[in-house]
Amino acid sequence: MSYSQYQADLEIAIRVADAARSAIAPYFRQALQVENKLAGGFDPVTAADRASEMAMRAVLAELAPDDGILGEELPDQPSRNGRQWVLDPIDGTRAFIAGLPTWTVLIALSENRRPRIGLIDQPHIGERFTGWPGGASYSRGGQSLPISTRKTALLADAILATTDAFLFQGAEWQAFDGLRQAVRLSRYGYDAYAYAMLAQGGVDLVVESALQPYDVQALIPVVQGAGGVITNWRGGDCSGGGQVLAAAHPGLHAEALAWLRAAAL
Amino acid sequence: MSYSQYQADLEIAIRVADAARSAIAPYFRQALQVENKLAGGFDPVTAADRASEMAMRAVLAELAPDDGILGEELPDQPSRNGRQWVLDPIDGTRAFIAGLPTWTVLIALSENRRPRIGLIDQPHIGERFTGWPGGASYSRGGQSLPISTRKTALLADAILATTDAFLFQGAEWQAFDGLRQAVRLSRYGYDAYAYAMLAQGGVDLVVESALQPYDVQALIPVVQGAGGVITNWRGGDCSGGGQVLAAAHPGLHAEALAWLRAAAL
Repeated sequence: MSYSQYQADLEIAIRVADAARSAIAPYFRQALQVENKLAGGFDPVTAADRASEMAMRAVLAELAPDDGILGEELPDQPSRNGRQWVLDPIDGTRAFIAGLPTWTVLIALSENRRPRIGLIDQPHIGERFTGWPGGASYSRGGQSLPISTRKTALLADAILATTDAFLFQGAEWQAFDGLRQAVRLSRYGYDAYAYAMLAQGGVDLVVESALQPYDVQALIPVVQGAGGVITNWRGGDCSGGGQVLAAAHPGLHAEALAWLRAAAL
Repeated sequence: MSYSQYQADLEIAIRVADAARSAIAPYFRQALQVENKLAGGFDPVTAADRASEMAMRAVLAELAPDDGILGEELPDQPSRNGRQWVLDPIDGTRAFIAGLPTWTVLIALSENRRPRIGLIDQPHIGERFTGWPGGASYSRGGQSLPISTRKTALLADAILATTDAFLFQGAEWQAFDGLRQAVRLSRYGYDAYAYAMLAQGGVDLVVESALQPYDVQALIPVVQGAGGVITNWRGGDCSGGGQVLAAAHPGLHAEALAWLRAAAL
Protein backbone atom coordinates (compact mmCIF):
# COMPACT_ATOMS: atom_id res chain seq x y z
CA MET A 1 0.00 0.00 0.00
CA SER A 2 1.24 3.46 -0.73
CA TYR A 3 0.57 7.15 -0.52
CA SER A 4 -0.98 7.23 -3.99
CA GLN A 5 -3.68 4.74 -3.01
CA TYR A 6 -4.80 7.09 -0.25
CA GLN A 7 -4.02 10.39 -1.92
CA ALA A 8 -7.63 11.35 -2.67
CA ASP A 9 -8.71 10.67 0.91
CA LEU A 10 -5.67 12.46 2.34
CA GLU A 11 -6.60 15.50 0.26
CA ILE A 12 -10.09 15.43 1.76
CA ALA A 13 -8.57 15.16 5.24
CA ILE A 14 -6.37 18.19 4.53
CA ARG A 15 -9.41 20.19 3.40
CA VAL A 16 -11.20 19.17 6.59
CA ALA A 17 -8.22 20.22 8.73
CA ASP A 18 -7.96 23.56 6.92
CA ALA A 19 -11.63 24.22 7.69
CA ALA A 20 -11.07 23.48 11.38
CA ARG A 21 -8.08 25.86 11.49
CA SER A 22 -10.16 28.73 10.13
CA ALA A 23 -13.06 27.97 12.46
CA ILE A 24 -10.93 27.83 15.61
CA ALA A 25 -8.61 30.78 14.94
CA PRO A 26 -10.94 33.51 16.25
CA TYR A 27 -11.31 31.71 19.59
CA PHE A 28 -7.83 30.64 20.68
CA ARG A 29 -6.52 32.80 23.51
CA GLN A 30 -9.67 34.89 23.49
CA ALA A 31 -11.94 35.03 26.51
CA LEU A 32 -13.79 31.73 26.36
CA GLN A 33 -17.18 30.86 27.75
CA VAL A 34 -16.48 27.47 29.21
CA GLU A 35 -19.46 25.21 29.73
CA ASN A 36 -19.44 22.27 32.11
CA LYS A 37 -20.59 19.27 30.10
CA LEU A 38 -20.60 16.94 33.08
CA ALA A 39 -22.22 17.99 36.34
CA GLY A 40 -19.62 16.21 38.45
CA GLY A 41 -16.35 16.90 36.64
CA PHE A 42 -14.75 19.53 34.51
CA ASP A 43 -15.17 18.95 30.78
CA PRO A 44 -14.72 22.20 28.91
CA VAL A 45 -16.68 22.47 25.72
CA THR A 46 -16.17 25.75 24.03
CA ALA A 47 -17.70 27.56 21.15
CA ALA A 48 -14.45 26.77 19.34
CA ASP A 49 -15.05 23.05 19.74
CA ARG A 50 -18.49 23.27 18.15
CA ALA A 51 -17.40 25.69 15.42
CA SER A 52 -14.53 23.36 14.52
CA GLU A 53 -16.71 20.26 14.21
CA MET A 54 -19.40 22.07 12.22
CA ALA A 55 -16.81 23.40 9.78
CA MET A 56 -15.29 19.94 9.32
CA ARG A 57 -18.71 18.35 8.75
CA ALA A 58 -19.56 20.98 6.15
CA VAL A 59 -16.49 19.98 4.11
CA LEU A 60 -17.34 16.28 4.38
CA ALA A 61 -20.96 16.94 3.38
CA GLU A 62 -19.62 18.43 0.17
CA LEU A 63 -16.72 16.09 -0.62
CA ALA A 64 -17.80 12.75 0.87
CA PRO A 65 -21.58 12.82 1.40
CA ASP A 66 -21.99 9.04 1.69
CA ASP A 67 -19.33 8.62 4.38
CA GLY A 68 -20.36 8.34 8.02
CA ILE A 69 -19.17 10.78 10.69
CA LEU A 70 -18.43 10.13 14.37
CA GLY A 71 -17.60 13.37 16.18
CA GLU A 72 -17.19 14.46 19.77
CA GLU A 73 -19.76 17.24 19.76
CA LEU A 74 -22.57 16.37 17.36
CA PRO A 75 -24.74 13.29 16.66
CA ASP A 76 -23.36 10.40 14.61
CA GLN A 77 -24.00 10.41 10.89
CA PRO A 78 -24.45 6.82 9.64
CA SER A 79 -22.21 5.56 6.83
CA ARG A 80 -23.70 4.39 3.54
CA ASN A 81 -20.49 2.80 2.26
CA GLY A 82 -18.46 1.38 5.18
CA ARG A 83 -16.32 4.51 5.44
CA GLN A 84 -16.44 6.65 8.57
CA TRP A 85 -14.69 9.92 9.46
CA VAL A 86 -13.83 10.20 13.14
CA LEU A 87 -13.37 13.79 14.35
CA ASP A 88 -12.11 15.34 17.55
CA PRO A 89 -12.64 19.06 16.92
CA ILE A 90 -10.24 20.07 19.73
CA ASP A 91 -8.24 17.42 21.53
CA GLY A 92 -6.70 18.89 24.68
CA THR A 93 -9.40 21.39 25.55
CA ARG A 94 -7.74 21.92 28.94
CA ALA A 95 -4.56 23.07 27.19
CA PHE A 96 -6.70 25.16 24.84
CA ILE A 97 -8.42 27.12 27.59
CA ALA A 98 -5.05 27.68 29.33
CA GLY A 99 -3.66 29.21 26.12
CA LEU A 100 -1.12 26.39 25.67
CA PRO A 101 -0.40 25.63 21.99
CA THR A 102 -0.38 21.84 22.20
CA TRP A 103 -4.07 21.10 21.65
CA THR A 104 -4.81 19.51 18.29
CA VAL A 105 -7.54 18.73 15.79
CA LEU A 106 -7.84 14.98 15.11
CA ILE A 107 -9.19 13.53 11.88
CA ALA A 108 -9.35 9.84 10.98
CA LEU A 109 -10.84 7.90 8.13
CA SER A 110 -11.90 4.36 9.01
CA GLU A 111 -12.86 1.67 6.52
CA ASN A 112 -14.77 -1.28 7.91
CA ARG A 113 -14.02 -0.03 11.43
CA ARG A 114 -10.25 0.12 10.91
CA PRO A 115 -8.55 3.56 10.88
CA ARG A 116 -6.66 3.90 7.57
CA ILE A 117 -5.58 7.50 7.47
CA GLY A 118 -5.03 9.89 10.35
CA LEU A 119 -4.22 13.57 10.72
CA ILE A 120 -3.05 15.45 13.84
CA ASP A 121 -3.16 19.22 13.31
CA GLN A 122 -1.84 22.03 15.55
CA PRO A 123 -3.22 25.22 14.03
CA HIS A 124 -1.48 27.83 16.20
CA ILE A 125 2.00 26.49 15.46
CA GLY A 126 0.90 25.53 11.97
CA GLU A 127 2.03 21.91 12.25
CA ARG A 128 0.34 18.93 10.63
CA PHE A 129 1.19 15.26 11.12
CA THR A 130 -0.36 12.78 8.66
CA GLY A 131 -0.26 8.99 8.51
CA TRP A 132 -1.44 6.30 6.09
CA PRO A 133 -0.65 2.60 5.59
CA GLY A 134 3.06 2.67 4.86
CA GLY A 135 4.09 6.21 5.71
CA ALA A 136 3.76 9.40 7.73
CA SER A 137 4.66 13.03 7.16
CA TYR A 138 5.13 16.36 8.93
CA SER A 139 4.16 19.58 7.22
CA ARG A 140 4.45 23.23 8.13
CA GLY A 141 4.46 26.37 6.04
CA GLY A 142 3.97 24.54 2.76
CA GLN A 143 6.88 22.15 3.32
CA SER A 144 6.37 18.44 3.95
CA LEU A 145 8.85 15.86 5.24
CA PRO A 146 8.61 12.13 5.91
CA ILE A 147 8.82 11.26 9.61
CA SER A 148 9.73 8.11 11.48
CA THR A 149 10.05 6.95 15.05
CA ARG A 150 13.49 6.55 16.58
CA LYS A 151 15.01 3.24 17.58
CA THR A 152 15.80 3.77 21.26
CA ALA A 153 16.83 0.27 22.29
CA LEU A 154 16.45 0.31 26.06
CA LEU A 155 13.59 1.29 28.33
CA ALA A 156 16.21 2.99 30.52
CA ASP A 157 16.96 5.38 27.62
CA ALA A 158 13.35 6.07 26.69
CA ILE A 159 11.34 9.29 26.97
CA LEU A 160 7.79 8.66 28.20
CA ALA A 161 4.81 11.00 27.84
CA THR A 162 1.35 11.03 29.35
CA THR A 163 -1.23 13.78 29.64
CA ASP A 164 -1.86 13.71 33.37
CA ALA A 165 -0.36 11.12 35.70
CA PHE A 166 -3.09 11.89 38.24
CA LEU A 167 -5.68 10.40 35.90
CA PHE A 168 -4.33 6.95 36.76
CA GLN A 169 -5.90 5.33 39.83
CA GLY A 170 -5.31 2.09 41.76
CA ALA A 171 -3.75 -0.67 39.65
CA GLU A 172 -3.33 1.70 36.70
CA TRP A 173 -1.33 4.05 38.89
CA GLN A 174 0.90 1.21 40.15
CA ALA A 175 1.57 0.07 36.60
CA PHE A 176 2.25 3.56 35.28
CA ASP A 177 4.44 4.49 38.23
CA GLY A 178 6.61 1.40 37.70
CA LEU A 179 7.07 2.24 34.03
CA ARG A 180 7.72 5.91 34.85
CA GLN A 181 10.57 4.95 37.15
CA ALA A 182 12.04 2.55 34.58
CA VAL A 183 12.43 5.16 31.82
CA ARG A 184 14.97 7.97 31.42
CA LEU A 185 12.52 10.84 31.74
CA SER A 186 8.82 11.63 31.55
CA ARG A 187 6.93 14.58 30.12
CA TYR A 188 3.34 15.49 30.92
CA GLY A 189 0.50 17.49 29.50
CA TYR A 190 0.56 17.02 25.74
CA ASP A 191 -2.57 15.02 24.86
CA ALA A 192 -2.49 13.85 21.21
CA TYR A 193 0.51 16.06 20.47
CA ALA A 194 2.66 13.52 22.34
CA TYR A 195 1.80 10.85 19.75
CA ALA A 196 2.86 13.24 16.99
CA MET A 197 6.19 13.69 18.78
CA LEU A 198 6.53 9.90 18.99
CA ALA A 199 5.89 9.65 15.25
CA GLN A 200 8.52 12.34 14.66
CA GLY A 201 11.17 10.61 16.77
CA GLY A 202 11.27 12.80 19.89
CA VAL A 203 9.24 10.70 22.34
CA ASP A 204 9.59 6.91 22.69
CA LEU A 205 6.49 5.92 24.66
CA VAL A 206 3.02 7.37 25.27
CA VAL A 207 0.73 5.86 27.91
CA GLU A 208 -2.88 6.92 28.42
CA SER A 209 -6.13 5.58 29.83
CA ALA A 210 -9.85 6.24 29.41
CA LEU A 211 -9.59 7.54 25.85
CA GLN A 212 -12.62 7.83 23.59
CA PRO A 213 -12.65 6.43 20.04
CA TYR A 214 -12.39 9.98 18.64
CA ASP A 215 -9.32 10.59 20.88
CA VAL A 216 -7.36 7.68 19.44
CA GLN A 217 -8.41 6.78 15.88
CA ALA A 218 -6.42 9.54 14.16
CA LEU A 219 -3.32 8.59 16.14
CA ILE A 220 -3.17 5.00 14.93
CA PRO A 221 -2.27 5.60 11.25
CA VAL A 222 0.20 8.34 12.22
CA VAL A 223 2.05 6.19 14.77
CA GLN A 224 1.96 3.05 12.60
CA GLY A 225 2.86 4.93 9.42
CA ALA A 226 5.96 6.30 11.16
CA GLY A 227 7.08 2.82 12.22
CA GLY A 228 5.63 2.75 15.72
CA VAL A 229 3.29 0.37 17.52
CA ILE A 230 0.01 1.41 19.18
CA THR A 231 -2.25 -0.97 21.08
CA ASN A 232 -4.30 -1.26 24.25
CA TRP A 233 -2.64 -2.43 27.48
CA ARG A 234 -3.20 -6.07 26.46
CA GLY A 235 -1.37 -5.59 23.18
CA GLY A 236 -4.60 -5.65 21.13
CA ASP A 237 -6.52 -3.21 18.93
CA CYS A 238 -7.09 0.16 20.62
CA SER A 239 -9.30 1.81 18.02
CA GLY A 240 -12.23 1.69 20.45
CA GLY A 241 -10.35 3.85 22.96
CA GLY A 242 -9.69 3.00 26.62
CA GLN A 243 -6.14 2.20 27.71
CA VAL A 244 -3.54 3.04 25.06
CA LEU A 245 0.18 2.35 24.75
CA ALA A 246 2.19 3.75 21.84
CA ALA A 247 5.85 2.84 21.36
CA ALA A 248 8.55 3.80 18.89
CA HIS A 249 9.18 0.17 17.87
CA PRO A 250 8.04 -3.38 18.71
CA GLY A 251 10.85 -4.18 21.16
CA LEU A 252 10.20 -1.14 23.32
CA HIS A 253 6.47 -1.80 23.10
CA ALA A 254 6.96 -5.29 24.52
CA GLU A 255 9.11 -3.96 27.36
CA ALA A 256 6.55 -1.30 28.29
CA LEU A 257 3.65 -3.72 27.97
CA ALA A 258 5.26 -5.93 30.60
CA TRP A 259 4.76 -3.09 33.11
CA LEU A 260 1.19 -2.28 32.08
CA ARG A 261 -0.40 -5.64 31.40
CA ALA A 262 -1.20 -6.31 35.07
CA ALA A 263 -3.51 -3.28 35.03
CA ALA A 264 -5.10 -4.03 31.66
CA LEU A 265 -8.90 -3.79 31.68
CA MET B 1 8.45 54.06 35.04
CA SER B 2 7.57 53.31 31.48
CA TYR B 3 8.50 51.48 28.33
CA SER B 4 10.54 54.42 27.03
CA GLN B 5 12.84 54.36 30.05
CA TYR B 6 13.74 50.75 29.24
CA GLN B 7 13.51 50.91 25.47
CA ALA B 8 17.26 50.85 24.81
CA ASP B 9 17.75 47.82 27.07
CA LEU B 10 14.71 46.05 25.62
CA GLU B 11 16.20 46.52 22.16
CA ILE B 12 19.42 44.88 23.36
CA ALA B 13 17.40 42.02 24.84
CA ILE B 14 15.61 41.55 21.50
CA ARG B 15 18.94 41.41 19.66
CA VAL B 16 20.17 38.84 22.19
CA ALA B 17 17.02 36.74 21.70
CA ASP B 18 17.33 36.94 17.91
CA ALA B 19 20.89 35.62 18.18
CA ALA B 20 19.74 32.69 20.30
CA ARG B 21 17.01 31.84 17.77
CA SER B 22 19.52 31.62 14.94
CA ALA B 23 21.96 29.59 17.00
CA ILE B 24 19.41 27.02 18.14
CA ALA B 25 17.49 26.56 14.88
CA PRO B 26 19.84 23.97 13.32
CA TYR B 27 19.57 21.72 16.39
CA PHE B 28 15.89 21.53 17.31
CA ARG B 29 14.39 18.17 16.36
CA GLN B 30 17.68 17.00 14.94
CA ALA B 31 19.51 14.03 16.43
CA LEU B 32 21.08 15.46 19.56
CA GLN B 33 24.15 14.32 21.41
CA VAL B 34 22.96 14.52 24.96
CA GLU B 35 25.61 14.82 27.63
CA ASN B 36 25.01 14.00 31.27
CA LYS B 37 26.13 17.02 33.26
CA LEU B 38 25.52 15.38 36.62
CA ALA B 39 26.78 11.89 37.33
CA GLY B 40 23.76 11.04 39.49
CA GLY B 41 20.83 12.52 37.59
CA PHE B 42 19.78 13.38 34.10
CA ASP B 43 20.63 16.92 33.08
CA PRO B 44 20.75 17.20 29.32
CA VAL B 45 23.14 19.77 28.00
CA THR B 46 23.18 19.89 24.28
CA ALA B 47 25.27 21.56 21.68
CA ALA B 48 22.26 23.81 21.16
CA ASP B 49 22.44 25.01 24.75
CA ARG B 50 26.08 26.03 24.37
CA ALA B 51 25.63 27.54 20.91
CA SER B 52 22.70 29.61 22.20
CA GLU B 53 24.60 31.03 25.17
CA MET B 54 27.72 31.80 23.11
CA ALA B 55 25.64 33.65 20.52
CA MET B 56 23.89 35.68 23.22
CA ARG B 57 27.18 36.58 24.90
CA ALA B 58 28.65 37.71 21.58
CA VAL B 59 25.81 40.24 21.18
CA LEU B 60 26.27 41.51 24.72
CA ALA B 61 30.04 41.81 24.23
CA GLU B 62 29.31 44.15 21.35
CA LEU B 63 26.36 46.15 22.71
CA ALA B 64 26.92 46.17 26.49
CA PRO B 65 30.55 45.29 27.20
CA ASP B 66 30.57 46.64 30.77
CA ASP B 67 27.54 44.66 31.89
CA GLY B 68 27.99 41.43 33.82
CA ILE B 69 26.67 38.06 32.57
CA LEU B 70 25.35 35.13 34.58
CA GLY B 71 24.58 32.19 32.32
CA GLU B 72 23.76 28.52 32.77
CA GLU B 73 26.55 27.09 30.65
CA LEU B 74 29.59 29.37 30.83
CA PRO B 75 31.54 31.13 33.63
CA ASP B 76 30.22 34.35 35.15
CA GLN B 77 31.39 37.63 33.69
CA PRO B 78 31.67 40.27 36.45
CA SER B 79 29.76 43.52 36.08
CA ARG B 80 31.59 46.85 35.97
CA ASN B 81 28.46 48.96 36.40
CA GLY B 82 25.91 47.15 38.59
CA ARG B 83 24.05 45.76 35.58
CA GLN B 84 23.92 42.02 34.98
CA TRP B 85 22.35 39.96 32.18
CA VAL B 86 21.01 36.61 33.34
CA LEU B 87 20.72 34.02 30.56
CA ASP B 88 19.15 30.59 30.32
CA PRO B 89 20.10 29.49 26.80
CA ILE B 90 17.44 26.74 26.73
CA ASP B 91 14.96 26.45 29.59
CA GLY B 92 13.15 23.14 29.35
CA THR B 93 15.91 21.02 27.86
CA ARG B 94 13.84 17.91 28.57
CA ALA B 95 11.06 19.26 26.36
CA PHE B 96 13.68 20.27 23.79
CA ILE B 97 15.15 16.79 23.44
CA ALA B 98 11.64 15.30 23.19
CA GLY B 99 10.85 17.63 20.26
CA LEU B 100 8.18 19.50 22.25
CA PRO B 101 7.92 23.18 21.28
CA THR B 102 7.52 24.64 24.77
CA TRP B 103 11.18 25.13 25.74
CA THR B 104 12.23 28.76 25.86
CA VAL B 105 15.20 31.10 25.90
CA LEU B 106 15.26 33.31 29.02
CA ILE B 107 16.92 36.72 29.15
CA ALA B 108 16.87 39.10 32.12
CA LEU B 109 18.58 42.37 32.90
CA SER B 110 19.18 43.02 36.58
CA GLU B 111 20.24 46.31 38.09
CA ASN B 112 21.65 46.17 41.60
CA ARG B 113 20.51 42.54 41.84
CA ARG B 114 16.89 43.28 40.94
CA PRO B 115 15.53 41.99 37.62
CA ARG B 116 14.17 44.96 35.65
CA ILE B 117 13.43 43.59 32.22
CA GLY B 118 12.70 40.03 31.19
CA LEU B 119 12.19 38.17 27.93
CA ILE B 120 10.76 34.69 27.38
CA ASP B 121 11.29 33.52 23.78
CA GLN B 122 9.93 30.40 22.02
CA PRO B 123 11.81 30.25 18.72
CA HIS B 124 10.00 27.33 17.04
CA ILE B 125 6.56 28.89 17.43
CA GLY B 126 8.07 32.34 17.00
CA GLU B 127 6.56 33.74 20.20
CA ARG B 128 8.20 36.34 22.43
CA PHE B 129 6.95 37.58 25.81
CA THR B 130 8.61 40.71 27.22
CA GLY B 131 8.18 42.50 30.55
CA TRP B 132 9.46 45.73 32.11
CA PRO B 133 8.42 47.87 35.12
CA GLY B 134 4.86 48.82 34.22
CA GLY B 135 4.06 46.61 31.25
CA ALA B 136 4.38 43.39 29.28
CA SER B 137 3.90 42.41 25.65
CA TYR B 138 3.48 39.42 23.34
CA SER B 139 4.97 39.48 19.88
CA ARG B 140 4.89 37.11 16.93
CA GLY B 141 5.46 37.62 13.25
CA GLY B 142 6.24 41.31 13.60
CA GLN B 143 3.09 42.11 15.55
CA SER B 144 3.18 43.10 19.21
CA LEU B 145 0.30 43.30 21.70
CA PRO B 146 0.11 44.29 25.36
CA ILE B 147 -0.71 41.36 27.67
CA SER B 148 -2.16 41.12 31.14
CA THR B 149 -3.09 38.44 33.63
CA ARG B 150 -6.72 37.56 34.15
CA LYS B 151 -8.67 38.22 37.30
CA THR B 152 -9.93 34.78 38.26
CA ALA B 153 -11.41 35.46 41.70
CA LEU B 154 -11.57 32.02 43.29
CA LEU B 155 -8.99 29.30 43.77
CA ALA B 156 -11.73 26.84 42.79
CA ASP B 157 -11.86 28.48 39.35
CA ALA B 158 -8.08 28.69 38.84
CA ILE B 159 -5.85 26.86 36.36
CA LEU B 160 -2.58 25.70 37.94
CA ALA B 161 0.61 24.74 36.12
CA THR B 162 3.81 23.07 37.22
CA THR B 163 6.55 21.39 35.24
CA ASP B 164 6.65 18.01 36.95
CA ALA B 165 4.60 17.18 40.04
CA PHE B 166 6.98 14.33 40.80
CA LEU B 167 9.74 16.83 41.54
CA PHE B 168 7.96 17.67 44.80
CA GLN B 169 8.91 15.49 47.77
CA GLY B 170 7.79 15.23 51.39
CA ALA B 171 6.29 18.44 52.76
CA GLU B 172 6.52 20.10 49.33
CA TRP B 173 4.44 17.28 47.86
CA GLN B 174 1.82 17.58 50.61
CA ALA B 175 1.55 21.33 50.06
CA PHE B 176 1.40 21.06 46.27
CA ASP B 177 -1.13 18.21 46.37
CA GLY B 178 -3.46 20.23 48.60
CA LEU B 179 -3.31 23.18 46.24
CA ARG B 180 -3.72 20.90 43.20
CA GLN B 181 -6.95 19.54 44.63
CA ALA B 182 -8.24 23.02 45.48
CA VAL B 183 -8.00 24.40 41.94
CA ARG B 184 -10.18 23.76 38.89
CA LEU B 185 -7.56 22.02 36.80
CA SER B 186 -3.81 21.50 36.54
CA ARG B 187 -1.47 21.33 33.58
CA TYR B 188 2.04 19.90 33.59
CA GLY B 189 5.23 20.05 31.60
CA TYR B 190 5.66 23.65 30.45
CA ASP B 191 8.70 25.03 32.32
CA ALA B 192 9.03 28.81 31.83
CA TYR B 193 6.36 28.78 29.11
CA ALA B 194 3.75 28.39 31.86
CA TYR B 195 4.72 31.80 33.30
CA ALA B 196 4.29 33.32 29.85
CA MET B 197 0.78 31.83 29.72
CA LEU B 198 0.07 33.31 33.16
CA ALA B 199 1.22 36.72 31.90
CA GLN B 200 -1.03 36.31 28.86
CA GLY B 201 -4.10 35.42 30.93
CA GLY B 202 -4.44 31.68 30.24
CA VAL B 203 -3.00 30.21 33.44
CA ASP B 204 -3.74 31.55 36.95
CA LEU B 205 -1.04 29.94 39.10
CA VAL B 206 2.41 28.45 38.55
CA VAL B 207 4.16 26.53 41.34
CA GLU B 208 7.74 25.30 41.12
CA SER B 209 10.62 24.31 43.37
CA ALA B 210 14.41 24.07 43.14
CA LEU B 211 14.77 26.71 40.44
CA GLN B 212 18.10 28.35 39.67
CA PRO B 213 18.51 32.15 39.44
CA TYR B 214 18.78 31.90 35.64
CA ASP B 215 15.50 29.91 35.58
CA VAL B 216 13.51 32.62 37.33
CA GLN B 217 14.96 36.10 36.78
CA ALA B 218 13.50 36.65 33.30
CA LEU B 219 10.07 35.55 34.55
CA ILE B 220 9.77 38.21 37.24
CA PRO B 221 9.46 41.33 35.02
CA VAL B 222 7.13 39.48 32.61
CA VAL B 223 4.76 38.31 35.36
CA GLN B 224 4.87 41.61 37.27
CA GLY B 225 4.61 43.74 34.13
CA ALA B 226 1.44 41.85 33.18
CA GLY B 227 -0.13 42.51 36.59
CA GLY B 228 0.78 39.26 38.33
CA VAL B 229 2.61 38.46 41.55
CA ILE B 230 5.70 36.23 41.77
CA THR B 231 7.45 35.35 45.04
CA ASN B 232 8.98 32.46 46.90
CA TRP B 233 6.79 30.22 49.09
CA ARG B 234 7.17 32.67 51.99
CA GLY B 235 5.88 35.55 49.93
CA GLY B 236 9.34 37.13 49.58
CA ASP B 237 11.76 37.87 46.76
CA CYS B 238 12.38 34.83 44.51
CA SER B 239 15.09 36.25 42.27
CA GLY B 240 17.62 33.85 43.81
CA GLY B 241 15.60 30.83 42.65
CA GLY B 242 14.35 28.00 44.86
CA GLN B 243 10.62 27.69 45.51
CA VAL B 244 8.51 29.92 43.29
CA LEU B 245 4.81 30.83 43.24
CA ALA B 246 3.39 33.03 40.49
CA ALA B 247 -0.23 34.18 40.57
CA ALA B 248 -2.46 36.23 38.28
CA HIS B 249 -3.26 38.77 41.03
CA PRO B 250 -2.58 39.46 44.73
CA GLY B 251 -5.77 37.87 46.08
CA LEU B 252 -5.16 34.55 44.33
CA HIS B 253 -1.51 34.69 45.37
CA ALA B 254 -2.51 34.98 49.03
CA GLU B 255 -4.92 32.05 48.72
CA ALA B 256 -2.29 29.82 47.09
CA LEU B 257 0.41 30.89 49.53
CA ALA B 258 -1.76 29.66 52.39
CA TRP B 259 -1.37 26.12 50.97
CA LEU B 260 2.36 26.37 50.31
CA ARG B 261 3.73 28.29 53.29
CA ALA B 262 3.93 25.22 55.54
CA ALA B 263 6.49 23.73 53.14
CA ALA B 264 8.48 26.93 52.62
CA LEU B 265 12.23 26.48 52.96
